[in-house]
Amino acid sequence: MRGSTGEPGSRAGVSRRGFLGLVGAGAALAAGGYAAGAAVGSSSPPEGKVHAFYGTHQSGITTPVQQHLYFASLDLTSSTTREQLIELLRTWTDAAARMTRGLEVSDGGAVGGGPLRPPDDTGEALGLPPAALTITFGFGPSLFAGEKGARLGLAGRKPTALADLPSFAFDLIEDEQSHGDLCIQACAEDPQVAVHAVRNLSRLAFGKAMIRWTQLGYGRTSVTSTSQSTPRNLFGFKDGTANIMSDESAELARWVWTPRDSSPVWFAGGTYLVARKIMMTIESWDRAQLGEQESIIGRDKFHGAPLSGGEEFTPPNFAAVDGSGNFAIAADSHVRLAHPDNNGGTRILRRGFNFVEGNNDLGQLSAGLFFISYQRDPQQFIDLQRALKSDAMNEYIRHVGTAVFAIPPGIGEGEYIGQGLFG
Amino acid sequence: MRGSTGEPGSRAGVSRRGFLGLVGAGAALAAGGYAAGAAVGSSSPPEGKVHAFYGTHQSGITTPVQQHLYFASLDLTSSTTREQLIELLRTWTDAAARMTRGLEVSDGGAVGGGPLRPPDDTGEALGLPPAALTITFGFGPSLFAGEKGARLGLAGRKPTALADLPSFAFDLIEDEQSHGDLCIQACAEDPQVAVHAVRNLSRLAFGKAMIRWTQLGYGRTSVTSTSQSTPRNLFGFKDGTANIMSDESAELARWVWTPRDSSPVWFAGGTYLVARKIMMTIESWDRAQLGEQESIIGRDKFHGAPLSGGEEFTPPNFAAVDGSGNFAIAADSHVRLAHPDNNGGTRILRRGFNFVEGNNDLGQLSAGLFFISYQRDPQQFIDLQRALKSDAMNEYIRHVGTAVFAIPPGIGEGEYIGQGLFG
Ligand code: HEM
Ligand code: HEM
Repeated sequence: MRGSTGEPGSRAGVSRRGFLGLVGAGAALAAGGYAAGAAVGSSSPPEGKVHAFYGTHQSGITTPVQQHLYFASLDLTSSTTREQLIELLRTWTDAAARMTRGLEVSDGGAVGGGPLRPPDDTGEALGLPPAALTITFGFGPSLFAGEKGARLGLAGRKPTALADLPSFAFDLIEDEQSHGDLCIQACAEDPQVAVHAVRNLSRLAFGKAMIRWTQLGYGRTSVTSTSQSTPRNLFGFKDGTANIMSDESAELARWVWTPRDSSPVWFAGGTYLVARKIMMTIESWDRAQLGEQESIIGRDKFHGAPLSGGEEFTPPNFAAVDGSGNFAIAADSHVRLAHPDNNGGTRILRRGFNFVEGNNDLGQLSAGLFFISYQRDPQQFIDLQRALKSDAMNEYIRHVGTAVFAIPPGIGEGEYIGQGLFG
Repeated sequence: MRGSTGEPGSRAGVSRRGFLGLVGAGAALAAGGYAAGAAVGSSSPPEGKVHAFYGTHQSGITTPVQQHLYFASLDLTSSTTREQLIELLRTWTDAAARMTRGLEVSDGGAVGGGPLRPPDDTGEALGLPPAALTITFGFGPSLFAGEKGARLGLAGRKPTALADLPSFAFDLIEDEQSHGDLCIQACAEDPQVAVHAVRNLSRLAFGKAMIRWTQLGYGRTSVTSTSQSTPRNLFGFKDGTANIMSDESAELARWVWTPRDSSPVWFAGGTYLVARKIMMTIESWDRAQLGEQESIIGRDKFHGAPLSGGEEFTPPNFAAVDGSGNFAIAADSHVRLAHPDNNGGTRILRRGFNFVEGNNDLGQLSAGLFFISYQRDPQQFIDLQRALKSDAMNEYIRHVGTAVFAIPPGIGEGEYIGQGLFG
């Protein structure tokens, strides 16, 4: 830090320069205001879109998948108390509600009701549109366990199905990219807006929780809305075709949202998030023949149609055989094994993103899929992942990160995220 | 790899599935065709924009800065010959010219004049618009040096001012993110399009050159066109205000393009690219007071106006003092030291991008600025960087990567990038 002497002149008045400090920042956020952007569904471009933060369920789950993700997993500090955790959740709730509305760009006073500006905010998203930002919060199994769970008074309060995932065949999990007490999923059409959100939420957690790992993702690999065209993953294939879509309310009720009589009761309308960081060996894949690639996926590369015929949205026919009597959709293809007909009958809502993180010593891209799925019970993911044990794709991918979080239901204004947990 | 037996049926005909192999891919690219997208300057959205690949100068320099960057540095393999390098440059030129026009999405035949599809292309950008893609190529000092330069017949052909940068105060350079024989700068409005370009160019280099390091950047931190509003960097400040703009042809001729009588002569209309990977300690910065941050930069955070008064584009008055007799723009502020009035009179064209790469063990963001500048002589950057030795910002940043490349001039159709080098 520089000395306090010789601070040069500034055009800004005292109220703009007053530093509220980190403890005060939460209060300033609460008192400050963001300008409302365009309403959802208006004809504005995606960057101008605003998704409602309050509602029955948290946003960022069935919300049409945005192009950019910044995901953070945090651990509480070893001394954080129950009261401090509640305070953090309140502060986060206010900040998230405001950030999703977009940062006001006018230059009014900062303290006591004015718009949120530096120093209350780090500033790099000033002037950017809301960019369809959604912020989704969750609780990891470790929050409820052992000494920590006891200290927080949460030992008996765990959502019933919340537990670390088992190990799967071929897993090469690294602890530094796995697990965590809390998670923040920030999705937006502009990466600067998503990064800004996580950075400011982590700043508000100062002294209470610390980032454990983060993941930047670009390019959705799934769609959750029939109005979106199917994107491609880094294997070059359309991804998201057979996903659960936001307008399939019966399917959502059946596979995604915890039921009314859920255990615990306050968790009704919640869901579970599974995150898997999956490395993809792009260079070997690029050397595989097109026919081989298509056989591994079970769909054609250009249209994304099942190899049993038809167009992208034609249901796959797993009984169909080719001229030589082999299955048109190979026995070890990804789509066959992942399909409810063959996985024991389960479904999930996928919401993953591509990532690229430079290259390894061999000059190969360090890249892959940050897989996120939502389901009303993590067992759905477990059943699916076990069904993929003989997946031919396993030769080209490796799971290196794992996490599971309970995503509490949405809230109304005046409430805070996860409130039911402390009721 | 899977066995060749039991290849399942596919809806695609033989011509779609024929694998050309890596050697043939270049020829297929040359024979294939991309659909032309919208012309530059049309009223289409940025994603639909096409920048001309051919011209007096390479594109991607004065081109309005796109939102995403994927930068790659490559080294030739130890056996690559002069003829193979020329072949690579030819192949890259064809592929780049076609990719910048956008990938055609129709499902025609692949071989002999059809559109470029899998397997000639990795496929993940199929259906995406051209996204204002530009691809800029360069040659590093190591290409001309020692045994390698001799093998390639390039020993005496080095652009005169091309040499590794000296060490600067506070440098913490890591070799794995520095230097290289060749560079590819791919910029686009869609990160998938930029990554796709580098991935396919590196695939075409198989056996001849291998990626040494790459850098993904999001969010321009500079503008090169007066039609763009000034973006913000990760310190939350407007960045690019005083940059050289694309319509300032006299300034470009003076500071960016090598002159007609340049040495060597074929390098006229070229330029030099300096890349510096600069880590920014975001968390300490976020704890600095607003007044302190503004003093360090020399501009106000909200408007980006110089602290001597006025609006964003008001020229700074370095003589101005505040009520206490201190300089309004502090003696150790970044803008004062970087300004031509105080740096010995030089200018550069900045074209940097933000990056975020997860976090370190302390939970701090691993983030910063991938600084790129273009200048007709790297000495301009050297003078500037030396002038920044007493910059108060140095406490919050650290340079960890360095590279310099000679960027050959643009070409006409039928020519290949860097052709003059082999003339
Ligand atoms: C890098 C890893 C992966 C890649 C590249 C990948 C790619 C794909 C592709 C291209 C499809 C076909 C289009 C579609 O319906 O979306 C698909 C379908 C699917 N994938 Fe994956 N996937 C990966 C990992 C996983 C994992 C880990 C799971 C769950 C454990 C999973 C579950 C599914 C499901 C449920 C379907 C739909 C199957 C159907 O009902 O037709 N995928 N995947
Ligand atoms: C993380 C590192 C850096 C940050 C955050 C940063 C930030 C800024 C900001 C906010 C401005 C004022 C607005 C503008 O005119 O663009 C600026 C100006 C400038 N910077 Fe930097 N900068 C960094 C590194 C560098 C480096 C390494 C150089 C060159 C060696 C450089 C050269 C310049 C120049 C030439 C100006 C314009 C000065 C003028 O003529 O007014 N910057 N920078």
